[in-house]
Parts: sequence; C-alpha cells; structure tokens
Amino acid sequence: MELVTIRELFKNRDGYLDKQVTVGGWIRSIRDSKTFGFIVVNDGSYFEPLQIVYHDKMDNFQEISKQNVGAAIIVTGTLVATPQAKQPFEIQAEEVTVEGASAPDYPLQKKRHSFEYLRTISHLRPRTNTFQAVFRVRSLAAYALHRFFQERGFVYVHTPLITGSDCEGAGEMFRVTTLDMEDLPKNPDGSVDYAQDFFGKETSLTVSGQLNGETYAQAFRSIYTFGPTFRAENSNTTRHAAEFWMIEPEIAFADLEDNMELAEAMLKYVISYVMEQAPEEMNFFNSFVDKGLLERLKNVVESDFAKVTYTEAIDILSKNNDQFEYKVSWGCDLQTEHERYLTEQVFKRPVFVTDYPKEIKAFYMKQNDDGKTVAAVDCLVPGIGEIIGGSQREDDYDKLRARMKELNLKEEDYGFYLDLRKYGSTRHAGFGLGFERCVMYLTGMANIRDVVPFPRTVKNCEL
Amino acid sequence: MELVTIRELFKNRDGYLDKQVTVGGWIRSIRDSKTFGFIVVNDGSYFEPLQIVYHDKMDNFQEISKQNVGAAIIVTGTLVATPQAKQPFEIQAEEVTVEGASAPDYPLQKKRHSFEYLRTISHLRPRTNTFQAVFRVRSLAAYALHRFFQERGFVYVHTPLITGSDCEGAGEMFRVTTLDMEDLPKNPDGSVDYAQDFFGKETSLTVSGQLNGETYAQAFRSIYTFGPTFRAENSNTTRHAAEFWMIEPEIAFADLEDNMELAEAMLKYVISYVMEQAPEEMNFFNSFVDKGLLERLKNVVESDFAKVTYTEAIDILSKNNDQFEYKVSWGCDLQTEHERYLTEQVFKRPVFVTDYPKEIKAFYMKQNDDGKTVAAVDCLVPGIGEIIGGSQREDDYDKLRARMKELNLKEEDYGFYLDLRKYGSTRHAGFGLGFERCVMYLTGMANIRDVVPFPRTVKNCEL
Repeated sequence: MELVTIRELFKNRDGYLDKQVTVGGWIRSIRDSKTFGFIVVNDGSYFEPLQIVYHDKMDNFQEISKQNVGAAIIVTGTLVATPQAKQPFEIQAEEVTVEGASAPDYPLQKKRHSFEYLRTISHLRPRTNTFQAVFRVRSLAAYALHRFFQERGFVYVHTPLITGSDCEGAGEMFRVTTLDMEDLPKNPDGSVDYAQDFFGKETSLTVSGQLNGETYAQAFRSIYTFGPTFRAENSNTTRHAAEFWMIEPEIAFADLEDNMELAEAMLKYVISYVMEQAPEEMNFFNSFVDKGLLERLKNVVESDFAKVTYTEAIDILSKNNDQFEYKVSWGCDLQTEHERYLTEQVFKRPVFVTDYPKEIKAFYMKQNDDGKTVAAVDCLVPGIGEIIGGSQREDDYDKLRARMKELNLKEEDYGFYLDLRKYGSTRHAGFGLGFERCVMYLTGMANIRDVVPFPRTVKNCEL
Repeated sequence: MELVTIRELFKNRDGYLDKQVTVGGWIRSIRDSKTFGFIVVNDGSYFEPLQIVYHDKMDNFQEISKQNVGAAIIVTGTLVATPQAKQPFEIQAEEVTVEGASAPDYPLQKKRHSFEYLRTISHLRPRTNTFQAVFRVRSLAAYALHRFFQERGFVYVHTPLITGSDCEGAGEMFRVTTLDMEDLPKNPDGSVDYAQDFFGKETSLTVSGQLNGETYAQAFRSIYTFGPTFRAENSNTTRHAAEFWMIEPEIAFADLEDNMELAEAMLKYVISYVMEQAPEEMNFFNSFVDKGLLERLKNVVESDFAKVTYTEAIDILSKNNDQFEYKVSWGCDLQTEHERYLTEQVFKRPVFVTDYPKEIKAFYMKQNDDGKTVAAVDCLVPGIGEIIGGSQREDDYDKLRARMKELNLKEEDYGFYLDLRKYGSTRHAGFGLGFERCVMYLTGMANIRDVVPFPRTVKNCEL
C-alpha cells in the first residue's frame, strides 16, 4: 500500500502541501457536526498527530462519524496549510476508509490514564502519548549505542544467555531446564540427575556477558555486547526487573582512563542522538513527566565529567554525614543518597568515582598497588546516581588466581578466563550500562516497568 | 593509551607513511636472524596483519625474539612503504614492549586447525583468521539490519525472553524456574505448586517475539525485533542451535506484497553492506570456505526476486519428482531439496513462494478466499533454501477466533492478540529471519556452531 507517513509530512511538508496524499492511522479523537467533522489521527511514525477534516459529501459520512477512538482509517485528501491553527497543516479529506473499527469498550479513551492502569494493558499502552514517546526513545537510544560503537570499529558480540557457569551466586539466577518437573530423574543418592537435562548439566540464565566478552576483546581489541540479562532477585522496587538489557563494552590495550573516556563519550553520544532525533518526545517528557529533564541532559552533554577517588569522596561525604540516612566511612558501599549528593551538590555534573575498596568489588577487578583498592569506576549522574559501573580488569595471572582462591572461586570454572592472562594478556577494561536505567534517565520515567515493553518482575509475567 | 589501529593504517595509509606510529596487537608469527627479526601482528581491528621489523640495537632484542605466538606487544616505529613486498607497508620498529607473554602451550600455533578442534576452545578461536572473519561479519550484519530498519523509521522493540504463554507447544520450550529442584513445593494433589515460583506461574523461554511484536506494530505501524529465541529441540544438526537470534519485523497497513518488498530490500541491504565493509573477509571466505560465495551473493543483490505460488511450485516440482528423495504433492511441506531446486534450477535467483496450504502453516496467518490456503510467504535463496518465513496476519476477529477454536487454542491465552483485531485492526504482515542462518549464508560457513560465539546445542553449554 502506498501510504505516506505522518513523519514524512512533517519533515518534508513543502513537498506535500496542496497535493493529494494518502495516510493510514488510528483515531485519537473524533467530533462531528451535521455537515463535517474532525479526526485527529496518529500513525505511530511521529509524535504529533494529524488533523483530518471530512464532510457530508462522502457516501460514508455517517459510518465515519460513528467511529470510536482507536479505529484504524485510511484517508486520501489534500494537505493544506493552517496558519491560524495550532497545528501547521491538516488534510481536507476526499475519502476516508475504515480499515478496522474499534469496539465501544476500547480501554484507551481520550483522557489521562494512570501508569498503573496502563501496565495492566501492556499490549495497548504504546498507543498512548507517553508510551509512544518512551518506546520510540528506547528504540533510538538502542540504535545510538550501536552506532556509537560501530563507528569506532567495535565488534558487536552476542554472548550467551543460557550459561553453565555460576559467576555471581546461584541464588540470584533462573534455572533453565527441560526435565519433567512432575517426575524428575534422580541419582542413586536421591539428588536430581542433571546429566539427563538438555545440556547434560545444570544451566541458568546469565547475569552478565562480561567474562565471555573479555575473551572477544582479547581477539578483536574493542568489543561490545548488547543483550538481555536476568536477575532472580526478589526485590519489588521501581528500579529492578528480572529481565533487562545490558551494554557491556570491553577494550584491550586500555586502562581505567580509557574506560572513563569511552563511558563519557558514549553517554554524551546517546543523549545527543536522542535529543536530535526525538525533540517532540523529549519536550513532552520535559513538560509532563520530569520538568528539569532537558536542562539536566544538556548539562551532561556540555560538562567535562569530574573525577574523584573513592577515598576522596568518602572524605567529602563524611564531613556531611549529618545529611545522610546512612553515615559513610571508608570501606562502606555508596548509597544512592551519597552518589546523588556527590554529583548534584558537590560537583554539579557527572562524576567518575574510582578506586573502591577491593572488599566491596568483584574478583576480576585490577588490584591497585596500595593493596587495599581496585581500579573500579562508577559513573554518577545528577538525578539518578550510579548509571555505569566498570573497572580495569586484573590482567596478571598470579594475582587473579590468588584473589579467586581468597574468595573460594573454583579454578576449574574459570579456566577459560585464566587462559586470557596466560596467552597474550593485555591491560584491559570495560563497563556495564543497564539499558533500562539509561532509558529512565533519558525520559525521566520513574518506574522501570514503564520503560520495558512487557516487564518481568516478581510474580508478574504477563503476555 | 594512544595506539593507532591497523585498520586505520590500511585505510588512511598516506597520512601515516614515514611517520612514527604506535600499535598494539598479538603476534601471529615471529622469526629472527642474529641481528634482526620479523613479527606479523594482528590487533583485531583489520583482517590483514601488519609486519614489524625489529633489530638487535634494541635492549630487549633477546626478550622479543623468544616471544611465542599469541603474545601481546606494543610497537613504536616508522611506517615504511614496501613496494616490492606482498604487503603494502611495514613498521620499522624503534621499540617493542611485551605487554603479555604467551605460554609455550598456546593452543593456536601457526598451522591450520580443524573447526571441530576450535569449537573446543571457543574462547580462543576468534583469534584465528576464519573466526575473526566470521565474527566481524556477524557484527556488521547485525548492525546493517539495525541500520536498514532505523533508516526506514521502524521502531526497535525488545520483546520478552521469559514468557508465561506457550504458543508453539511446551515440548520445545525451556522451562525457567527458581523453585528448589531438590525440594519442589507441591499442591495437595501432588503436582508441582508453581504459584510459589518466581513469577507465580509456569514460565518458559520464548520461541518467537512475533505476537508481542504485533501489538507494537498496531501502535507504531512499523517495528522490528532483534533478540534471542530458544528451541529445546533434541536435534543435533548443523543448522539447529538451542539459542539463536531472530529478526522479526512487523508492518501495519501492509499486505503480503509489502512484506515481500521489505524482505527483498532487507536481504539486499545486509549483503551489500557486508560486502562493502568487509571486502577482505568476504574474499577470504570466497577463497577458503565457499568458492562460489561472492558470485552467489552478487546474484542475490542484482536479481529481482521471483514469485511463485505454492500451488504453481508443486506443479513444477511434481513434474520432476524423479529427482527428489521426498516426492511432492499438493499439501506437503517443502523440503530443502525442493526449495533449492526451485531457486537454483528453476528460477536461478531468489524466489518467494506464497499461499501455502493452511494445514501446514500457523494459526495466525491470513486465510485466503479459496478456503484452502493462507497468505504465507517463504523466501528461498540459492545455496540454502528457505532463509525467511512470514505471512500476512489474520486481521479478522471472527476468522481468527474460529481458526483458534479449530486448533484447540485456548482463547484466554490470546486475549491480548484478539484485542488487536477488536480495536483498530489493520492489514498487517511480518516475517522472521534467523540471524545465524543469515550469517551462514553471508560467510558460506556450513555449521551453525561456527557462527555463534558460544554455541548452545544438545548436551553442549560450555563457557
């Protein structure tokens, strides 16, 4: 079907004004008088809707007028400028065909619905202004991230989802199995016989592609992953989902400084791209969802990110302990209140905090010479706190092995990972960006359930 | 670290010739005489390696000379043209630093290893020529697909991986659970109590994002998914993996013709993009993996795809039944031998086969007026057979409901899907492209295990 999109009409209006066009879309509102009527239609290609004027010279004037919100129509008519009106132009219709009617019980009437209600109709909520905006921005942000890395020659790696390793503790992982749950095969000792499972052993859903990603960085030098990850955490918050997407770049011949440069450039790129490609959506968020959004994002793009060590940060924060619910002291993990204080009150721009105590960070982070800290880095941004966590990786075979032993990690599970330090080890670093966290930051949306098309959370797996 | 990539040296050689440069990479081969030596180094940024000449005026000449294949080095020196040699230039080194040595038992020595062997070291195989080429092409192909859809205004939708619905029969799906397998909670009747599971019900890994994707197409008009899907099929073939990536576009206000146009444009785009961006890799495949590859791919890009109905195709094939292991007759599914005969012998170019018997296709496909066939389409390409399967979707509420009833599908499981036909239904269509199948087609690689970084197949889930 030869339809022009509403986006195309807005972007190249001069080419279409006073010409005949055909558009297809869904009715957002409709009102009629005796001899003519107005339809506001949206076709999903553009945030702004299009007004259609129809009239009683059409054979199906009555049929059109009784259409409900949500109905799909195809309209042929002339695009006419409307300099006096709010919208720049409208279509004076010659023909309106009903593609698909909308039943009277259509759940999205022309009024404001609560986000809570809209979560119960996740298959229809992308038809509302807010969720059109959210999910277009989500799409653009995903693409911006791909562009950013591909333009820099990074190789996109699909790390596996189903994993036989158990890197961060099985308690948080989802088991994957094809065993008959009603009749589990058993070993002689009564335990479950996983040798009969699909993969011949216990398997779970991954919590991170990083370790696999590192193997590819040691071949391609600069790689990134972008795929789903899973946490079976029983936490019912506005920031946790059981299934979410992560971006995990990994760079060889690179240290913590290179890592921070990459993270800063990436954040600025994705913000700039979305502001440029979706100005209507971003203005909508700024007006109706989060008043300070655009100013905050512009500030991020225009700032040089600050840098502070964890030890310096603790110094600063502990002088202001009276302002915090959780008091800080050296060795403690930073809470969101501390992170936001640093980035919003102290530095007034994004800030990298580096060199955390090794006890609160993962085994694979590079040990600093002080024996106490590791070359970790978190990026804190105003309005949210931590948005990125990363580190330089331990590239020394003996140090890595010793640290694994201290933490009772089984060497046989990490043979491949140790191999990377045995055969052509390089200084290397990487970080993780939770994609939903990023979309929340870009849109000002406060609940992760409202930036995932079909969210999976504790006791919730609809559609 | 300020290193220039080898790709940059090859792409912008004139800017670097006779200047000092610093590169980092891994040794592919090394040989020395008493006073100087040659190192061939690859940094993962470019398929062609770079030759380094070093000499005994360096303090660490002995240390360099004893490095093994696989060692990581950083080289500073002058880029010098070598018009007499096979390679266009080399670096005459002033300094070679060993970043990380490679132990003598490095599994990748300078000889040809079998793909079977390399599968056992999936963390190291991307360092070989073949797998550097495969996984760079995989990355470029993924990006090309994103570019194709984004340039056309499609919205990228992340459909869920964990699903509570069971669209294609639970036998083929992986169960996802956090229940204690050694002590499953039970209902009074002795069955497993899934109300205590993480999501409060039975959940599995998705086999397709299509139904979810359709809900977004009815909001955004043109969408695509690109994410992992799973099949727990116990089939140990060269073409099946338990975990693989799929691209599933879905377009509203569109019919089967639009669907075919989109599929043809997409395939041509991704082939062209990869041939343009990775000519060295593609020449390598054409020389060492699949001799007819480039000619076959060029033919696809330059052809107008043919179109034939299933009924016509059966006519053609049944006249040649003596050539087939499986004889065809109307109503049967096409086997690869039939598909390849059609595209390679009959049409000698890609061909769309449309309007299959409804009995061999899915419930959601649009019923044709003949009462026997549905508006399905498969795209067959030379060398492989089916690469894309799709259809126009049934957009009529009553027809869809009747078909679901015939097939004993529970209406309560598909309420959201029926809603799409109740509230502003549109003609719409879509298709699925198995991404691994696509990468195999682009590279000529014959086994799916060799185009997935860390393949998951029956009894195999390493790393």
